Amino acid sequence: MPESIEDLPTPCIVIDAAIVRRNLAKAASYARERGLGVRPHTKTHKSTLVARMQLEHGAVGLTVAKVGEAGIMAGVTDDLLMAYPAVDRRRCAELASLARERTVRVGIDSPTAADCLAAAARSAGSTIGILVDLDVGHHRTGVQSPEEALALARHVEKAAGLRLDGIMFFPGHIASPPDEQAPALKALSEQVEALIAVWRKNGLEAKVVSGGSTPTLFQSHLVPQLTEIRPGTYVYNDMNCVRGECATLDDCAARITTTVVSTAVPGQIVLDAGSKTLTSDRCGPAPDSGHGHVLEYPDAKIVKLSEEHAQVDVTACDRAPKVGDRVTVIPNHICPCINLQDAVYWKEQGEPARTIKVDARGKVF
Amino acid sequence: MPESIEDLPTPCIVIDAAIVRRNLAKAASYARERGLGVRPHTKTHKSTLVARMQLEHGAVGLTVAKVGEAGIMAGVTDDLLMAYPAVDRRRCAELASLARERTVRVGIDSPTAADCLAAAARSAGSTIGILVDLDVGHHRTGVQSPEEALALARHVEKAAGLRLDGIMFFPGHIASPPDEQAPALKALSEQVEALIAVWRKNGLEAKVVSGGSTPTLFQSHLVPQLTEIRPGTYVYNDMNCVRGECATLDDCAARITTTVVSTAVPGQIVLDAGSKTLTSDRCGPAPDSGHGHVLEYPDAKIVKLSEEHAQVDVTACDRAPKVGDRVTVIPNHICPCINLQDAVYWKEQGEPARTIKVDARGKVF
Repeated sequence: MPESIEDLPTPCIVIDAAIVRRNLAKAASYARERGLGVRPHTKTHKSTLVARMQLEHGAVGLTVAKVGEAGIMAGVTDDLLMAYPAVDRRRCAELASLARERTVRVGIDSPTAADCLAAAARSAGSTIGILVDLDVGHHRTGVQSPEEALALARHVEKAAGLRLDGIMFFPGHIASPPDEQAPALKALSEQVEALIAVWRKNGLEAKVVSGGSTPTLFQSHLVPQLTEIRPGTYVYNDMNCVRGECATLDDCAARITTTVVSTAVPGQIVLDAGSKTLTSDRCGPAPDSGHGHVLEYPDAKIVKLSEEHAQVDVTACDRAPKVGDRVTVIPNHICPCINLQDAVYWKEQGEPARTIKVDARGKVF
Repeated sequence: MPESIEDLPTPCIVIDAAIVRRNLAKAASYARERGLGVRPHTKTHKSTLVARMQLEHGAVGLTVAKVGEAGIMAGVTDDLLMAYPAVDRRRCAELASLARERTVRVGIDSPTAADCLAAAARSAGSTIGILVDLDVGHHRTGVQSPEEALALARHVEKAAGLRLDGIMFFPGHIASPPDEQAPALKALSEQVEALIAVWRKNGLEAKVVSGGSTPTLFQSHLVPQLTEIRPGTYVYNDMNCVRGECATLDDCAARITTTVVSTAVPGQIVLDAGSKTLTSDRCGPAPDSGHGHVLEYPDAKIVKLSEEHAQVDVTACDRAPKVGDRVTVIPNHICPCINLQDAVYWKEQGEPARTIKVDARGKVF
């Protein structure tokens, strides 16, 4: 049932549709000019409605992290990348089944993953595309050298059921403001070039070079090897983006409406959005900046969260809200906040808010 | 469908039923000996199945934080306490409706909450019991002095639709090991006694004195004014309990089964349980101890989480698991982990695991 924001049950996430469209159009325009494919990471919105909007804005396909997400997003695209290693029988079987009727690629960094996916693909009678995951400095996953990448690529090439498609990487370590990223992206580009050269010398081609993140989105041209980018957060943005200077508060499409439930402790207000709504994620570029930004009270600081309470220090504010008032919070990290909601409110200008389901919420498998 | 743990899709939470029963029996036995009512906080398990077990173990009723949880738990008890202020029309209306056919109490710290609940109760033709929330040192919510408590109690007494039942508090600031809690609990008891004395002098009675937490559970006798306690985490326990010395690893009933998905970065393994499974909550008593405890590799340290990855430093281990292996994690804080799952696996000894629904998951309203 459509509702006015003033009457929504709090805490809740309200998405400003106009800001979403502006964010999508900006990325699409940049990518078009640079000849890059956009393959948005759906982890941010976990919604088939928003995924469809991304495809309408020219996305070449979608990115997911988990098989459960792949199953949902297979409903809106026939071109999926799981940017996450599948190493067990169950995951590989589900991916192989999805690959029967669509392009499915998986990013991997071990022969175990290759063998497990190959066996599943053969059993399902499908072919799974493989991107070799390269560690470009984030040190989370990814092979460590061109030589390791070559060994894994050869392993993949030999495996019936698999198709070597290229490489992927995640530059999560580059979170500096965009205009300071050039040296890091230049080093990254050289690392990617070295890998491609070793492959080429050995008769292997990286047709797909998939990288990118929201902080580096509009600097992707500094890595000319890229064929596609996988920004996620850019669709909604958050305080990580704002304090990392890759978005402004006006670019934040997802805002949390909360109610003040207590002002009993002097100098403090308590909001009904705790870690069950905001998560405990700190702000990457500013870890001591509190648990989100209170839009109407910019001098307030969310100093402590428990599951259902946000304790907000208002001693620096020249006025403070009273019990029952509503205030808006931009969270530090929007992706896991969305994951905590069964539905969010979608707001078109001049229309009442309506709920949209977070279809791919909670898919940890 | 029942399954063996080795074949469960990971990451998943497996609950050991025998440990749950032992934890419940221990608390029930202590409370019986001391003449205390147990009103478990259901936020930890969010499950009507486990709530029923608590009631079978003698619980006098249940505690919830949110109206959505109250609606679910009303299915298994006719005695509910919402230990959280309701200050808006929607929440109060739903509580007033629930109060028509059962005992519903709410802990509040403002006249706004009292007025809103009273109006809703009158409109619904019900009566809502009120506990005045006292700040005993946690400084989150709660009136600040016996005089403020008296003023609010008088306000409640005058409001048609409300019934003044007593006081509540949450000693969340007392997290020291149980055998070091006596001084803090003595001070707390004196604070409670002062409030009761002021009320008595003014003809008001605190029939219900509701307090308690898991860390202070077995020290509740040091606050002789208590009539009931509201432990939550005691049913499952977690690393907060273990490192806070109020439980052992053997008392941890909820364990997270994970799969190693990458070992590409030297000295590190990556598990498929990130912040979407473990949450970003730090361990209260040991904030630098990592994001949970790896049971099979006690020298491993979960140093970094992203949404779907746990990066585990294994340089201190004399052996390390390989890609595809499964390892068990005890999380820092089990309550928000449960909230991230639609269902958990319930394991009776000698039987396959079966899923049970997390009925009250995601109820932020």
